[in-house]
Amino acid sequence: MKNIESGRRSFIVKAALGSLATFSIPEIAFSAVAESSVKKVNFKESDIILFQGDSITDSGRNRTNNELNSQNGLGGGYAFLASADLLFNHPDKKLQIYNRGISGNKVYQLAESWENDVINIKPNILSILVGINDYWHTLSHGYKGTVETYKNDYRALLQRSKDKLPDVKLIIGEPFAIIGTAVNQSWFQVLKEYQETARQLAAEFDASFIPYQKVFDAALTKAPGAYWSGDGVHPTMAGSELMANAWLKTVKG
Amino acid sequence: MKNIESGRRSFIVKAALGSLATFSIPEIAFSAVAESSVKKVNFKESDIILFQGDSITDSGRNRTNNELNSQNGLGGGYAFLASADLLFNHPDKKLQIYNRGISGNKVYQLAESWENDVINIKPNILSILVGINDYWHTLSHGYKGTVETYKNDYRALLQRSKDKLPDVKLIIGEPFAIIGTAVNQSWFQVLKEYQETARQLAAEFDASFIPYQKVFDAALTKAPGAYWSGDGVHPTMAGSELMANAWLKTVKG
Repeated sequence: MKNIESGRRSFIVKAALGSLATFSIPEIAFSAVAESSVKKVNFKESDIILFQGDSITDSGRNRTNNELNSQNGLGGGYAFLASADLLFNHPDKKLQIYNRGISGNKVYQLAESWENDVINIKPNILSILVGINDYWHTLSHGYKGTVETYKNDYRALLQRSKDKLPDVKLIIGEPFAIIGTAVNQSWFQVLKEYQETARQLAAEFDASFIPYQKVFDAALTKAPGAYWSGDGVHPTMAGSELMANAWLKTVKG
Repeated sequence: MKNIESGRRSFIVKAALGSLATFSIPEIAFSAVAESSVKKVNFKESDIILFQGDSITDSGRNRTNNELNSQNGLGGGYAFLASADLLFNHPDKKLQIYNRGISGNKVYQLAESWENDVINIKPNILSILVGINDYWHTLSHGYKGTVETYKNDYRALLQRSKDKLPDVKLIIGEPFAIIGTAVNQSWFQVLKEYQETARQLAAEFDASFIPYQKVFDAALTKAPGAYWSGDGVHPTMAGSELMANAWLKTVKG
């Protein structure tokens, strides 16, 4: 059953993406995003933008560096790349950008440091990407949480954010994976439930939703998986730039 | 005399840039580059691209990381940002990108490690940004080199590169500064000679030339100097993205 499902999914993805082969990679990434229900963000002067999540967001940032708009503090992943674009393109906005992602975190671990690492920073715009460890660690770390745990913990975290920061604009990224050294075909049937959860919560909390799975699936028509992510979870440079482009396209329209 | 010259230069720059105030920052950066004699680079499959220079290129890279296409190895500055864009936009090209910039280096110091850090890597495309320390260290480190030293050392280095790598495509960046905590108006009269030297050598060696001074001067119409560089030499994130955009616009057209 798992194999049939996996094969069917693989076929559907390939069929859907086949017609994209003639397009450039930015066109592909952007079209994947454009199909999603885009809620643009209007940046206002002195907006505080905060990236939250796991290792994909953390990306080797210096956690002792609390400065705003700092490469060292923002790490070397999509959060930094998207931030550099925002700062370059909006020199009049005096944007203040931070990253507080922590490698390995699942939703309940984000919740433990949420007061310090989110509420106290008072973001106007809060971008969250979390969920891959909520699934992965059930395979690799003996973690007992289910997709229900993910849904309940994530919903509570988002509600708490809205209660404490009523005007915060939320951006929710879809947890994603591609076949890689840590990921095989068996992941996708269950991962899809986590992805659907993230999408539903985005709708529930009026958040912009970034369909990273569709974006990476589209990118696979242009280069093998290893070009975008070695292990299937952590993006390469090309994968990080792909994510940053998808983030910017979703957020800026 | 110096003050009159500085004032005149400042006036000319302001007058020339005044009309740019209504344009967006990418338009400004791109127009600055477009005015220069652009020699586009055609990327071929498996091209090896190497960034060389001083701290602006180094940008905190991990010097023990010799991997290609690695954020950690490319640092957190314009070299990384331009590389992420190239890798994202050219997934079919299998580009191999390295950074070997070293903080504090002047031309003669680059020359000392050129065999290991350039020739042995066999780049098809070699991007160099060097010169600000050749001037700055005459003020701050008692360095005795002159603009003639810079010209002779730089020309010898470029000739050596062409001799050892006959087909290498060269990209030369203009050394630049803006008023900042380390830079005052007195810099520009002499720095201009270093900039003119870099421009002449670019022409002599059929290199693409990136007019960073004009790009930063243009950016100053959109936000104060501290937004683009704190000390006037090292770019902020916004300044790094400005440089990356100018580099890409010059190189890709």
